[in-house]
Amino acid sequence: MIIKKIEEVTAVPVEMAGARDVSVRVVFGPKDAAPTFALRQFELAAGGCTPHHSHPFEHEVVVLAGEIAVVSNEGDKPMSPGDAALVPAHEKHQFKNTSPSVPARMLCIVPVQYQK
Amino acid sequence: MIIKKIEEVTAVPVEMAGARDVSVRVVFGPKDAAPTFALRQFELAAGGCTPHHSHPFEHEVVVLAGEIAVVSNEGDKPMSPGDAALVPAHEKHQFKNTSPSVPARMLCIVPVQYQK
Repeated sequence: MIIKKIEEVTAVPVEMAGARDVSVRVVFGPKDAAPTFALRQFELAAGGCTPHHSHPFEHEVVVLAGEIAVVSNEGDKPMSPGDAALVPAHEKHQFKNTSPSVPARMLCIVPVQYQK
Repeated sequence: MIIKKIEEVTAVPVEMAGARDVSVRVVFGPKDAAPTFALRQFELAAGGCTPHHSHPFEHEVVVLAGEIAVVSNEGDKPMSPGDAALVPAHEKHQFKNTSPSVPARMLCIVPVQYQK
């Protein structure tokens, strides 16, 4: 059994094209021999965002702190702490911190083979 | 894309032998066509616990609220909000709310084929 304090996991800036002021902590992934899925925490500074993109695997997301808008095929949808999203494979999406001043934090789980 | 408020997902009492005062909300699972993993939220009343058991699949857990002890091969380990655990397949484990008065809440992710 592995137990971690998420805030002690190294936060790495997301440097994909279109990402802004967002970092990721890989809580459990291939380096922990997670067999099926990887657990990551994303932290978006005020005004930060993930890329507007799609990929051949799903996300499951839980908002932990702050106010986030998820860009979906049906437009922007607001999410708050305690809200969860299932983004299917191939659906274009983006997570944006809509606050001008407050950081946002969310968990994002993906199939482990897509976590480097 | 599916978005849910976790607290609006139906909470079902866990009725496995050894479980006490614990309920589960299946946030995303087979009924949502989650392809790889299921996201559940467990809520443990004061003094509540999950069964002390093992199974052929892993758990990834994030404590959201309250104080939890996880029973592991190396004894009880305390967990607080912001702590995460990877319980490998076949390792015996149990989650116990150690507070006499405060409910606890945790996310628990499993491979989807093990979520009914």
